[in-house]
Amino acid sequence: MAIMVVGSVALDSVQTPHGSREASLGGACTYFATAASLFDRVRMVGVVGTDFPEQYLDLLRSRDIDLAGLQILPGETFSWSGRYGVDMGDVETLDTRLNLFSDFHPVVPESYRESPFLFLANIDPDLQLEVLSQVERPRLTALDSMDFWITGKRASLTRAMSLVDLVVLNETEVLMYSSRSRLIDGAEAILDLGPAALVIKRGSEGSMLVTRGNSIGERYFVTPAYLLPAVTDPTGAGDTFAGGMMGYLARTGDLSVSGMRRALVYGTIVASFTVQGFSVDALRNLTLDDIAARYRDYRCMTLYDPSPCPAGDWLERPLGRNTRAGTN
Amino acid sequence: MAIMVVGSVALDSVQTPHGSREASLGGACTYFATAASLFDRVRMVGVVGTDFPEQYLDLLRSRDIDLAGLQILPGETFSWSGRYGVDMGDVETLDTRLNLFSDFHPVVPESYRESPFLFLANIDPDLQLEVLSQVERPRLTALDSMDFWITGKRASLTRAMSLVDLVVLNETEVLMYSSRSRLIDGAEAILDLGPAALVIKRGSEGSMLVTRGNSIGERYFVTPAYLLPAVTDPTGAGDTFAGGMMGYLARTGDLSVSGMRRALVYGTIVASFTVQGFSVDALRNLTLDDIAARYRDYRCMTLYDPSPCPAGDWLERPLGRNTRAGTN
Repeated sequence: MAIMVVGSVALDSVQTPHGSREASLGGACTYFATAASLFDRVRMVGVVGTDFPEQYLDLLRSRDIDLAGLQILPGETFSWSGRYGVDMGDVETLDTRLNLFSDFHPVVPESYRESPFLFLANIDPDLQLEVLSQVERPRLTALDSMDFWITGKRASLTRAMSLVDLVVLNETEVLMYSSRSRLIDGAEAILDLGPAALVIKRGSEGSMLVTRGNSIGERYFVTPAYLLPAVTDPTGAGDTFAGGMMGYLARTGDLSVSGMRRALVYGTIVASFTVQGFSVDALRNLTLDDIAARYRDYRCMTLYDPSPCPAGDWLERPLGRNTRAGTN
Repeated sequence: MAIMVVGSVALDSVQTPHGSREASLGGACTYFATAASLFDRVRMVGVVGTDFPEQYLDLLRSRDIDLAGLQILPGETFSWSGRYGVDMGDVETLDTRLNLFSDFHPVVPESYRESPFLFLANIDPDLQLEVLSQVERPRLTALDSMDFWITGKRASLTRAMSLVDLVVLNETEVLMYSSRSRLIDGAEAILDLGPAALVIKRGSEGSMLVTRGNSIGERYFVTPAYLLPAVTDPTGAGDTFAGGMMGYLARTGDLSVSGMRRALVYGTIVASFTVQGFSVDALRNLTLDDIAARYRDYRCMTLYDPSPCPAGDWLERPLGRNTRAGTN
């Protein structure tokens, strides 16, 4: 089922300890769409300037992403530049130029209006509301946001969150919006606004799903990030997590609690590929087989009853190691 | 199968935002033994003074914990006092009095020598080595340690870690010992010393098991903490985690990788009860049925393929909520 996504398409300049890129393909809408297009058809709504490289448009088209809703206007594309420290934690924003994005008003093409899945990536919540008013009742609506709107447009964001089925925020945003110190208290405050579910992105700690339920285990699903030996560039991890999650939901149509939990895991897997390259590089040649293989390994990393891992005694060690202080 | 544990038995004075306790039953050995005794027979090796309340000895005896190795000497029992802040994160130690513990040398009673499971709780690694020299080859040996020994007795600790089957440390200790910034790099450095497995305790983030394996999923098992609405006192969480884990291993005798992963989960469950009360209060009347019930809920909180949770569509919401901006 088709997924419509609204958000930023950007030219990113990123520095990490592993290297740097200038004016590479970026933006929440782009990352989301690239990830979701691994699973199903994607329709983008956004804006770029005439400076936007044709090769980037070609890349999106090559993934069968519908660009009918991508406005190409005279002027400059939204650009962002940032630098990550050694631990790849908080990013330092060096420069943000909204350019054409500052006057952006999303226009949903007629051909998009009946998209069954809608993702409102992180943009001004007033624009998110504008989009909601332009669509026929989708099967599933979701939104992401950020600290800037939590503090600057709280009322609009609150209204938008109350109107969607699924809110996707990171841990810091949940605590900031709710003014709570414990994550689950903050999560409950957001669920009280009306959405049926909240997904909390926790970076290298993984993610959490909060739904209505009677016990802690029915209410909260907690799942770790896939452990990677190294991270090249964390940019886009959260948006591709959301893209993988929504893509899986759209492809399977499974909106059961179990299906939603698996969707978080697929989001986790896609995000783990994203951070192994700059921009969307690591997603470009990725296949569903690659995703399935890592999903199997992730099951092995997380499941225990039953465990899908190969059997074996962990005490078996190389010969000669099994000595004791008392016997040597 | 019997589990022998060596470590501190203490009188703790603890302040948390939820209240305080004076001279309550504490110490790593005590916490571990109380937790492990939920699953199997436990034998303690430690020391207390003649000031140690008889009622605390009675409590341990009531759990069929063998106290033949608990020295009761003239003098004062090891005491510790600490204070937790609002977020229950790092504890501030207010006072530590080693008292009799400063001259402690563990003596393993003849009746303990063939204990198949041995846990060396956090004590001087030279004493851990002394214990290893006093036992017949156990089926499984494990040790815990702390920052104090990592910096102060590194060589002895390194030797002790190379001699046991299982090392149990918290995240900070792994990074400190290994001088690495990434947890999995630190974990590999410790596994290279010789132990067959490393368990990393991560507090409210859960725990991780590192064993030898060919893929990330075979090598690392990552599992979250059980989410609690409130924590009363975090003291003893790590030791009861280890106690639950070792207790489960001893009870089942299952040293497969799968069994070891479930053991971490049982440790997680026991620790989640521990922190809901001061001292060992929450463990006193706990039964295996209580543990099994929370284990079932934890499975629901963490498993996804298949999911053991009740079926149902998470989009189902109370009537009247399902409005959209465009339709109201």
